[in-house]
Amino acid sequence: MLPCMAKKSFAVGVDLGGTNLRVAAVEDTGLPLETRCTSTGLHRGREAVVREMCGIIQGLIDRFSGSHAFSGTGVGVPGIIDIESGTVRAASNLPGWNDSPVKAEIQHRLGTPVILENDANCAALGEKWIGAGREAESICMVTLGTGVGGGFIFHGQLWHGMIGMAGEIGHMTVAPDGPPCPCGNRGCLEQYASATAVSRMIKEAVCNSHASEMPDDSEFSAEIVFQRAMQGDPVARQIFQTVGWALGVVLSSLIDALNLPMYVIAGGVSSAWEAFSPALFTELRRRSIVFRASDPMGDHGYHKKTIVTRAVLGSEAGLIGAARLPMLAGKLVGDERDALQKECRLSL
Amino acid sequence: MLPCMAKKSFAVGVDLGGTNLRVAAVEDTGLPLETRCTSTGLHRGREAVVREMCGIIQGLIDRFSGSHAFSGTGVGVPGIIDIESGTVRAASNLPGWNDSPVKAEIQHRLGTPVILENDANCAALGEKWIGAGREAESICMVTLGTGVGGGFIFHGQLWHGMIGMAGEIGHMTVAPDGPPCPCGNRGCLEQYASATAVSRMIKEAVCNSHASEMPDDSEFSAEIVFQRAMQGDPVARQIFQTVGWALGVVLSSLIDALNLPMYVIAGGVSSAWEAFSPALFTELRRRSIVFRASDPMGDHGYHKKTIVTRAVLGSEAGLIGAARLPMLAGKLVGDERDALQKECRLSL
Repeated sequence: MLPCMAKKSFAVGVDLGGTNLRVAAVEDTGLPLETRCTSTGLHRGREAVVREMCGIIQGLIDRFSGSHAFSGTGVGVPGIIDIESGTVRAASNLPGWNDSPVKAEIQHRLGTPVILENDANCAALGEKWIGAGREAESICMVTLGTGVGGGFIFHGQLWHGMIGMAGEIGHMTVAPDGPPCPCGNRGCLEQYASATAVSRMIKEAVCNSHASEMPDDSEFSAEIVFQRAMQGDPVARQIFQTVGWALGVVLSSLIDALNLPMYVIAGGVSSAWEAFSPALFTELRRRSIVFRASDPMGDHGYHKKTIVTRAVLGSEAGLIGAARLPMLAGKLVGDERDALQKECRLSL
Repeated sequence: MLPCMAKKSFAVGVDLGGTNLRVAAVEDTGLPLETRCTSTGLHRGREAVVREMCGIIQGLIDRFSGSHAFSGTGVGVPGIIDIESGTVRAASNLPGWNDSPVKAEIQHRLGTPVILENDANCAALGEKWIGAGREAESICMVTLGTGVGGGFIFHGQLWHGMIGMAGEIGHMTVAPDGPPCPCGNRGCLEQYASATAVSRMIKEAVCNSHASEMPDDSEFSAEIVFQRAMQGDPVARQIFQTVGWALGVVLSSLIDALNLPMYVIAGGVSSAWEAFSPALFTELRRRSIVFRASDPMGDHGYHKKTIVTRAVLGSEAGLIGAARLPMLAGKLVGDERDALQKECRLSL
């Protein structure tokens, strides 16, 4: 007789972006088994996108169900999700998806349990599971992309807040009379530390310098500004000092309020870590009483340091975190699977 | 035979202040059975204070143990507590108490379990239990007193943070170039919304007005400024508008980050609610995307509103919340009681 070996399990994670649709089968160890990628093709309408997504998910389920136990599907969506009903409440990058029961639609096609989640929350889960936060019980993740987003994990669980809107860190106020933000506030973090803000600041700097020659638009990307900063360009360096300063003001407030063990900086702009992190840490040391108190080198001598660090999974974080959702939900997903199977038997 | 009735239970709560020591027996319904008050008399040294405290606690235990089951003692201390070891790490208003094992000292004298907690956290627990937050699962409490403190309760449990320093809301930044704070930061909430800040602002206003007659110091209390504001004095009104503005900037950031259902404003300055709350709500509506999204009157039509309200228990909150600690700890305290009883039997 063969020895009785417990089967490894896997889940499917989906990262639904405005441009790309990525689907991965991920083992319960965090190992990605296979990733499939296609363009989202939003112009085809929601039903077509959901149909194609389900085809890819089912392909991965079929491929790995022989060797692994299947624990469910997690789908990350860039928008506000009503977790209980599995409805996308508002998703500005997915036109036509507002107020749609996406969880029920996918679940109906697959006949297996699905969990819907905000994409920034998925990325936080991914970094917590096998990324920068794997040693921390609780983390705050700040994502510096086109905009600035975020997510909180407290004691290993995502913090959704009352209506699923927790993590709007990009709209925390850095300077109450700062640049206006489309959200209605002034001086939001997003106005200082997003890729969009970096582009705006370099444009403003060029305009203010009365340069005779205007560089073309490609010169204004956050990536180019970062390269210039690393080559020693003083204007570009100043811009990333502003990024670090603004992030430092907001993180100091979060550290003093929540005293979490770890804050993870993710998203495209986090690649410029070397350019903005010195200013960030200067602000943290200057402003945050809790950051200083939890510094083992500081006066209080606590042996637990507040860690502020870069994300390590890059754009994989959201995909891996989405696959983590059904694994964490465990019992819940199990019950739902039983109910779904019962429903299927009744309908036969 | 008499019918078998389950005994009601009670706990003892202690509010240890720099000036007053208050001890109450509180029923598991939240009903205070008896409160005893004395002056703390810190000059006598820690041991004498702990001895007197334990005498009062034991008196209340003896008084109510016949009619009620006793579930333990909770002690609120104004300082940073290491919850696990029950040590007061730092308490600026209790000279000589730093790094002292207060929990073990009290427990040793009483022979029954004790829980030590930060006093602002106790106040948050009290308001959550039978005060403004009794209908909310999670709350943030901001205490506007001599300084500004705070506490978070998530899913009914106190949030301590990594080293027990969570809730330093008074040092969150309102304006990064604002007035310097003794903590090292600039523009902390405490510099705009504490009783100390209100006094500073009225002094600054009087100095700037080049008044020929300087009012005496009693004229500078937050209470007098509030009375003047309510009588229509424009300078006093402006000061409370600044209080509301600053509180609005910080609360907007907390609401956007955490999306809690309720934020409770406590402490002496909260008595001036009528003077500062209009400016507070103006800022919340202007600045917080999550506050607006969760307004049933707003565009999104969510049916759950973010509630920002005054505390209702006043100075009783800390005392009642301290008594709540052993009730919440339940199992933990039970185990500790068994171990203590075993220890006592062994030492006989």
